[in-house]
Amino acid sequence: MLSVEQALRSVLASALPLPPRRVGLREALGRRLAEPVVSDIDSPPHDKAQVDGYAVIAGDVPAAGRELQVLEEITAGKCPTRAVELGTATRIMTGAPLPAGADAVVMVEDTEPLGGDRVRLLKGPPRPGQNIMRRAASLARGQTVLAVGKRLRAAEIGLLAEVGRPDVFVAGWPRVAIIATGDELVDAAQTPGPGQIRNSNGPLLMALALQAGADATALGIARDDPAALREKIAAALAHDVVLLSGGVSAGVLDLVPGALAALGVRPVFHKVNLKPGKPLWFGTRDREAGQPPTLVFGLPGNPVSTLVCFELFVRPAIERLSGLPGTGRPRCQAHLAREHRHRGERPTYWPARWAGGRGGEGAQVEPLAWQGSGDLRTLTEADCLAIFHGPDRVLAAGEVVEVLALDRDST
Amino acid sequence: MLSVEQALRSVLASALPLPPRRVGLREALGRRLAEPVVSDIDSPPHDKAQVDGYAVIAGDVPAAGRELQVLEEITAGKCPTRAVELGTATRIMTGAPLPAGADAVVMVEDTEPLGGDRVRLLKGPPRPGQNIMRRAASLARGQTVLAVGKRLRAAEIGLLAEVGRPDVFVAGWPRVAIIATGDELVDAAQTPGPGQIRNSNGPLLMALALQAGADATALGIARDDPAALREKIAAALAHDVVLLSGGVSAGVLDLVPGALAALGVRPVFHKVNLKPGKPLWFGTRDREAGQPPTLVFGLPGNPVSTLVCFELFVRPAIERLSGLPGTGRPRCQAHLAREHRHRGERPTYWPARWAGGRGGEGAQVEPLAWQGSGDLRTLTEADCLAIFHGPDRVLAAGEVVEVLALDRDST
Repeated sequence: MLSVEQALRSVLASALPLPPRRVGLREALGRRLAEPVVSDIDSPPHDKAQVDGYAVIAGDVPAAGRELQVLEEITAGKCPTRAVELGTATRIMTGAPLPAGADAVVMVEDTEPLGGDRVRLLKGPPRPGQNIMRRAASLARGQTVLAVGKRLRAAEIGLLAEVGRPDVFVAGWPRVAIIATGDELVDAAQTPGPGQIRNSNGPLLMALALQAGADATALGIARDDPAALREKIAAALAHDVVLLSGGVSAGVLDLVPGALAALGVRPVFHKVNLKPGKPLWFGTRDREAGQPPTLVFGLPGNPVSTLVCFELFVRPAIERLSGLPGTGRPRCQAHLAREHRHRGERPTYWPARWAGGRGGEGAQVEPLAWQGSGDLRTLTEADCLAIFHGPDRVLAAGEVVEVLALDRDST
Repeated sequence: MLSVEQALRSVLASALPLPPRRVGLREALGRRLAEPVVSDIDSPPHDKAQVDGYAVIAGDVPAAGRELQVLEEITAGKCPTRAVELGTATRIMTGAPLPAGADAVVMVEDTEPLGGDRVRLLKGPPRPGQNIMRRAASLARGQTVLAVGKRLRAAEIGLLAEVGRPDVFVAGWPRVAIIATGDELVDAAQTPGPGQIRNSNGPLLMALALQAGADATALGIARDDPAALREKIAAALAHDVVLLSGGVSAGVLDLVPGALAALGVRPVFHKVNLKPGKPLWFGTRDREAGQPPTLVFGLPGNPVSTLVCFELFVRPAIERLSGLPGTGRPRCQAHLAREHRHRGERPTYWPARWAGGRGGEGAQVEPLAWQGSGDLRTLTEADCLAIFHGPDRVLAAGEVVEVLALDRDST
């Protein structure tokens, strides 16, 4: 049986970056730039005033009290018509171009208007260059202002607008289709009859995929019927990633692997040495040239198994498809806050929470009273998964264990 | 002039939580629960098998090699019809209800089918209760499974589906309208003529509002014309928060405060003692009973000033409207990585980055070669804002300064 590490390598070997997408600025937010962005402008386009006030010649104002003649008034978006000379000043607004001759701007708060076209400066000699931003000080025409791979936060979105890029190529991200399988499933809006349970895996996987940065389409519940299953999977195969939950353990009604084979999905592995989540199925289906293969995950039917398999294999794959390293959630070492009895041979990913607040390297971690792979409620109290290894043993409080941090994004 | 702290208190005094919204599970992701959620089911609804295998009586299997008669086969969603007795077993699939009599499930991998209806168990005595999840072990009917205020991650979305909640009340979040003002502005898609610049503040504010969890509507550019400005602002006032950029310093064409007054927006403050961002205008407009007032921010026209004012005042306000504490980005103490010359009396928020990788408490922080409030490009290299206080002085490398972490969410 494959180890988690072997299985992950196998998944990532098929998870190739998707083609870039050209998107508007709203959709670009949070994505990675897939082209270098070059400025087509100088910014500012001219020497400009950084405050409202008066453009003056610094050397013309030896001390507080100097009176000057006001030549004209320049607002942002207008151009000066006259050069400032000794004895004169130009009234200027924030962002407006500095008139020729002037080499400083005095804030309006430090001035007093006199009658007519005169103004008095209330403070001592201005510093040459004060309150002026020089042409191209922020960015110059032809300069590469954002590099490939840069994550687009708010400041980058503003800068793209400034350099004339209302749309931009960003790293692609996968379209994920989600199918829950099983005759026992009913929708969240229905009341389960005897032997039935509600479909929690579908919404769980939708939320996981969305938070991993994918587009997520829920295709609903597929019944344990070969024809129905095949039809739904065929629709799902138009996506970059297909997530099926249930139907992949060794039970007689586990029809999923057969339906996948019939649709040309090549099986890569089935079963991984971990708990919960052992009956994980993974396969690929080739697409036309230039498109990476569709990745198909058959996830176990229990919700905690589904989440663990998503975090260990699907999230890294989504990251790779999105042009990222594919490291998944960060891991760290932490101390057990209390004794824990481990059972079994398989590496076990156990819901846990940080003890006493913030977690991370060296923190204390408390394994929760988890009831097994169907116990989603306990998972809502978890910040992380503590990783225990076989064979059966009692781990002492204070022992160091490896932890997968569910409350942190990939680095 | 108000201090940053006084101004923030004044903003938060008007920032009251919005009414909860009822949303589907996709939209609920990442929001805060506004009602306690009670389970209407036991989960599991019956004692159930956690693996595919055989339901047996543990005491009936003294050692490896025991052969049993198979009574029937129970798949998930079906109910057992016969009780397991000594000498018998029931074939059972993961998730299926345990038949009466049985008290353990043996994994199918540890069994060997014999001819007809017989099976051989390949391993030693099973542990009573093994591979069985007991009825209501995860959650019980009538139990509160998610508390008010709980943040809805993927596990919580799955649990909501499990307990029959396809929609749920979550804390409300603001609808934010954004208007950029100024005759000098052109859209990102246009080439600026002489004296013109592109509107970077609109996209910048849209991105900031979206990342703060708000709905953001960009209303475009308003010209420096009282009637046009009034019309755009009137449309914006239907939102919970209005963000205007430009038009609020003391320049002669700064028409925004007048237009706001004419539309019934009550001014609260104008100017805050900080750099960049001093000419910040804030006011409120009452709405019908049960609705908190609309918050109106007149932000400075330069993009870095706009971002600083957003982080210091608008983000905490959006958080409060969303039922959160309103602490904004986290602050910490860090060491200056190099000497920095501070100029001026006003507290200054200076773009900076973590030196040598990860930042946070005690880390090293490097002030960037920032050209002033119009220099958005340098802000794209920043992880944080270092806060310097007057008067003019040279801060030595290693000195401890306060830092606002732009790369971290509110706690």
